[in-house]
Amino acid sequence: MLPDVTGNRSDGRKGDLVATDARHVLHPWADLSALGRPESLIVCEADGVEVVDSSGRRYLDAIGGMWCVTVGYGRRELVDAMRAQAQKMPYFTPFGDISNAPATELAATLAALAPGDLNRVHFTTCGSTAVESAVRIAHLYFASRGMPEKRHVLSRVDAYHGSTFLAASLSGKEADRTRFQYESRWVHHLASPGYDPDTSSVSADQRLRELVEGMKRTITEIGPEKVACFIAEPILASGGVLVPPPGYHEATRELCRRYDILYISDEVVSGFGRLGHFFASEVRFGIVPDLLVTAKGLTSGYQPLGAVLISDRIADSLVAGADPAKPVFSNGFTYSGHPVACATALANIDVMERDDICGHVRDVGPYFIDRLRELRTSPIVYAVRGDHLMACVECQVPGEVGPTPRNQALAQRVDAYCEEAGLLVRPYENLCILSPPLVITRADIDRIVNILADALARAEQDLRAGRGC
Amino acid sequence: MLPDVTGNRSDGRKGDLVATDARHVLHPWADLSALGRPESLIVCEADGVEVVDSSGRRYLDAIGGMWCVTVGYGRRELVDAMRAQAQKMPYFTPFGDISNAPATELAATLAALAPGDLNRVHFTTCGSTAVESAVRIAHLYFASRGMPEKRHVLSRVDAYHGSTFLAASLSGKEADRTRFQYESRWVHHLASPGYDPDTSSVSADQRLRELVEGMKRTITEIGPEKVACFIAEPILASGGVLVPPPGYHEATRELCRRYDILYISDEVVSGFGRLGHFFASEVRFGIVPDLLVTAKGLTSGYQPLGAVLISDRIADSLVAGADPAKPVFSNGFTYSGHPVACATALANIDVMERDDICGHVRDVGPYFIDRLRELRTSPIVYAVRGDHLMACVECQVPGEVGPTPRNQALAQRVDAYCEEAGLLVRPYENLCILSPPLVITRADIDRIVNILADALARAEQDLRAGRGC
Repeated sequence: MLPDVTGNRSDGRKGDLVATDARHVLHPWADLSALGRPESLIVCEADGVEVVDSSGRRYLDAIGGMWCVTVGYGRRELVDAMRAQAQKMPYFTPFGDISNAPATELAATLAALAPGDLNRVHFTTCGSTAVESAVRIAHLYFASRGMPEKRHVLSRVDAYHGSTFLAASLSGKEADRTRFQYESRWVHHLASPGYDPDTSSVSADQRLRELVEGMKRTITEIGPEKVACFIAEPILASGGVLVPPPGYHEATRELCRRYDILYISDEVVSGFGRLGHFFASEVRFGIVPDLLVTAKGLTSGYQPLGAVLISDRIADSLVAGADPAKPVFSNGFTYSGHPVACATALANIDVMERDDICGHVRDVGPYFIDRLRELRTSPIVYAVRGDHLMACVECQVPGEVGPTPRNQALAQRVDAYCEEAGLLVRPYENLCILSPPLVITRADIDRIVNILADALARAEQDLRAGRGC
Repeated sequence: MLPDVTGNRSDGRKGDLVATDARHVLHPWADLSALGRPESLIVCEADGVEVVDSSGRRYLDAIGGMWCVTVGYGRRELVDAMRAQAQKMPYFTPFGDISNAPATELAATLAALAPGDLNRVHFTTCGSTAVESAVRIAHLYFASRGMPEKRHVLSRVDAYHGSTFLAASLSGKEADRTRFQYESRWVHHLASPGYDPDTSSVSADQRLRELVEGMKRTITEIGPEKVACFIAEPILASGGVLVPPPGYHEATRELCRRYDILYISDEVVSGFGRLGHFFASEVRFGIVPDLLVTAKGLTSGYQPLGAVLISDRIADSLVAGADPAKPVFSNGFTYSGHPVACATALANIDVMERDDICGHVRDVGPYFIDRLRELRTSPIVYAVRGDHLMACVECQVPGEVGPTPRNQALAQRVDAYCEEAGLLVRPYENLCILSPPLVITRADIDRIVNILADALARAEQDLRAGRGC
C-alpha cells in the first residue's frame, strides 16, 4: 500500500515527490491560492551548514532549518544518542509519578543552565505547547492563590508565540491574522517594542519611556488585579528581528514585579546559543523571568521537544495552593519528556559544551552583524538589524517604507536570486531573515554576504529596468 | 555541567534518578500535593511487551506506553529508519512550499489508508496540536464561506482531547477540570454517550434516542448557524473506555450533515490498529468524517507526531474561499512533518502491514475482552467493558457506584497488587484501564487476566478485613 515515492534524486522520482506533496500535504503557512500546484522544494540531504534538494542542488542554509539547527547537520553524536535511546526504551508514559532517565537528566541539566531559581521543568512537544503550558501555569498560579479573575495576558504587536488557538491569539503579527478565530477578551497586545537607532526619529530613551508608559497604562486600564502574565521574546524573531531599546527588559520586568504579574520569557529562538549563551534573559538582558519557554535549539531541531522552566517560587506556590479535593496538575502531553527527544537534547548540549559553541557565537556573531551592515550601502536596503546570529535585511523600493506589495515583491526577488546562487534565506514580507547554524565560519559568513550583495544588486537593476517589482 | 545521573540500574544511581526527578520535573497529571517526594517509577529499558524499571524490575506493559506502543518495544525496523533519516536529513522547515521526502510519502500513505476523501494532511507534533488545528480549520472553513459567527464547538462530557487551552476546554472529564481557565462561551459539552448493556437500566435504543435528541436540542438552542463542528472519539478512551450505543455514530454524523456542522473524528487512540483497523471511523462505525485527528499509534509512540486528515471537499473550499489579500494558511508548527518522526511512522506502517497487526488484533481482541469479562464474577468489579485492545475494569465497594473515594482507593489497591506482581495497568479514578501493545499473544492475555484476578481477590480480602479501603 505504500506509494512508490522516495527521496531518490533521479528526475522521475523528483517529479513524483513534488506531485505527491502538492496532492497530499497542507503545509504550515501554505499559500492557499497555490495549494495543489507542484512547486515545492523537497529537501532530501544535509550536512554541516548545507542542505541538498531532490534535484541534487546544494544550498548554504542561512536559516538554520528554521532558527533551530544550531550544531549543524549530520552530527553523529546526536544521531547515536537518538538511536541508542530508541533501541533501549523508545517511550513510556510520563504521566503522574512515572519518568524516564533522559527526561530526568535533561530537567536537571536545564535547571543548571537556566537563570535564577528556574529549577522545575515541564516538558512539552514544541514551542506552541510550551507557550500554552506557561500561560496555563500562570492561570493556575493565581487561581490557586484565590484570584481566578487574574487571567488576562499581555503580549505585543509583532510577537510570535505559536499557532495553537491561545498561542496564535498571543501572537501579534498582522500578516498572520487571517480568518481563523482569536481570543481577544483577555489577551492584549502592547506596542511593538522594536527600536532601530539607524532609522528611528526618536531617541532610545524616549522610545523606552513611551513603551513603559504604554504598558503601565494598559495594566491600569485592565486593572492589575486581572492581569496574570506578560509574555515576551527578548528579541522578536519572526516578527522581523526587532530589538527593543536598552533598558526595556529590566523596566518591563520591574513593572511585572510591581503589579504581581508573572513574566514569561519566550526563549524559543533566543535560547541555546543564538545570542551567545544557553539562555539570553539574564546574561544579555539582566532579567530573571518567572517562567521560561524553550524549544527549537534545545535539540538542534533533530527532535520535536519543548519545555517550560518554572521558578521554585511558582512551583512551591502551586503546591501550597493546590485544591485538596483535586490536587492533580491537569496539563501535559503523551510525548512530554519523550525519552528519544530528551536523549537527543542531552547529546546536543554535550556537543555545545564540548565545542564551546556559545563562545564561537560570541566570537563570530559581531562579525556576522558587521558584515551584513555593509549591505546598507545598497539603495534597496532600508535597514539591517540583529544581534549575533539572528539578523534581517529589510528591503525597500527607495522612498517606500514597510511591507508594501512592491517592497515584498522586491524582497522575494532578492530571495529568489539568493536561492539561484545556492543560499537559502527566510523570506518574510519585505525581509530576508537570517539565522544560520551556530557553527558557521567566517568564510561561510563571507559567502552569505557576497551572495546577498549580488542578489541585492541584481534586484536593484531589475527595479531600475522596471522588471518584476 | 551535566549532572551525574544516568539510567544505570545500580541502587545508588537509582536513588539519584528518583531524587533528581522529584527535584526537577513537573510531570503531566502530577499530584501537586506530592510534588518533590522521591517516589517516581523510572522506566529504563523495554523490549517486546515488557518494560524494566531503574531497579531492574520487569513489568508486562498492559497500557502500551500510553495507548500508543502498538508494534511493541525494541523494534529494529523503526530504530533503523529513525537513525537513517536523522543521519541523512534530520530537519528542515516545512513552512510554505518546502517539504521533505518522508513527510510527503507519509501524507500519501495516510491518504491511502484513510476513509473517503480524507486526502490532505496537515502534520502537527501531538494529539493536542492536531485537535487544535482541526478545530481551527473548521473555523477557517466557515469564515472563508462568509460565516465567521459559525464557530461554536460541540464536544461531550467524559471526552478527552488534549491539554492546550482549547483542547483542554473541549475535554469533558470532570476529574481533569481543575483551577485552570477554560473556554465556555463557544464550547459545549453534550451528554456522555457511553452505554453499557450490562449495567444500564434502559435499552440501547432508548439511550440512542436520548443522545440524539439531546444533541439536536443543543444545536437548536445555540443555533445551527453558530455551530462549526462536533468533535468525537469513536470510543471515549481515557474518559473510561465508554462505548456509545449502536447507531450513535451514524446518527450524529447525519445530524452534522443536516445542520452543516463539520464532524471531527478524534482517532488518536482508536486509530492504528487498536480496534483492528488503521482507522475505525468507517470500517467499524460506518462514518466518514470531514476531519480526522491521529497521533500515538501513528509512530507506535517511538516519535512525537500528530496529524489532521482533511477531506478534499474542505480543502477545496479553503482554497476557493481564501482571502485574496492574505491567502496564507497561518497554522502549523516548526516540527510539522518532522522528517525523523515521519520516517519512523512509515517504518511503523510497514511493520504493521507486513505482520498484519490489524488482523492479529481482530483475532486476539475478542479473546482479550472475553477473558477480561470473566473478572465480573468478582464482587468488587462493577463492570468490564471495551472493544478489541482497549478495555477497562471498573471497581466498586459492593453497592457503591462511580468514582467515590472508597472506590478509587480500592482500584488503587488493585493497581498496586498488579504492579507488585509485574503488571502495569493505568490507574484512573476507580478504573484499571488496559491498552496493551497490539502484538500481545493469547499467553500474555492469560497472564494479564490471571494477575488481575489475583489482585482483585487480594483487594477484596483487604476490603473484607477493613484494610486500606
